[in-house]
Amino acid sequence: MQFISTLYGKHEVIIDDDVASGGKDSGTRPKALMLSSLAGCTGLDVLSLLQKMRVKFSDFSIDVEGHQTTEHPKMYNHVILTYKIKLAPSSHAKMKKAVDLSQEKYCGVSAMFRAFCKLDYKIEFL
Amino acid sequence: MQFISTLYGKHEVIIDDDVASGGKDSGTRPKALMLSSLAGCTGLDVLSLLQKMRVKFSDFSIDVEGHQTTEHPKMYNHVILTYKIKLAPSSHAKMKKAVDLSQEKYCGVSAMFRAFCKLDYKIEFL
Repeated sequence: MQFISTLYGKHEVIIDDDVASGGKDSGTRPKALMLSSLAGCTGLDVLSLLQKMRVKFSDFSIDVEGHQTTEHPKMYNHVILTYKIKLAPSSHAKMKKAVDLSQEKYCGVSAMFRAFCKLDYKIEFL
Repeated sequence: MQFISTLYGKHEVIIDDDVASGGKDSGTRPKALMLSSLAGCTGLDVLSLLQKMRVKFSDFSIDVEGHQTTEHPKMYNHVILTYKIKLAPSSHAKMKKAVDLSQEKYCGVSAMFRAFCKLDYKIEFL
């Protein structure tokens, strides 16, 4: 039940089912990759915007929590993004602006999620 | 511009921007992971259905072609899946049935894509 997904001709991602479903858990379940895609897309936006605003920061990460419907085909119906970052209190407003710009204007994956799912987000300042 | 996405607490996927956008191309662009998710989800369905139907096959792969809008936020607006497989001509109808069942009933990622995008698919018998 293992697939190797090759992106841009060179970057490989291993996809496999869990043991209970007949796989060997050698890689991720495929649907969860949509959540990686979401976090990565908005994460690159925010990094890029913070750099343009010359904001210094560290420990930037994004947690993604996805809830699915219970009937086939099982789809995400509620996803919560939690942006975590350490920066000076004087830069909190700029971080909020960067996240809002990504969510409202730039992040294509977030826009796609909103076509089928409730998408909430929050920021935790470390 | 690099992120490490950790799924199920252990499977890691590296996300990075291309060099032209300030990244180092150490991993995939994030949006393309949605296409890996799509191919992996329907691919696992088809594998599982072919095994249940006791169909022998080899060389199974899926090509995914994604087209995006040109304005921000850039979203996929047309995706084409090409299932490629080698099996006996007597099993061609079973392969078609497995793909149709995945696309019409089981594959949650395909259902999510249809919320924002035209999704076409075809089968190539090798």
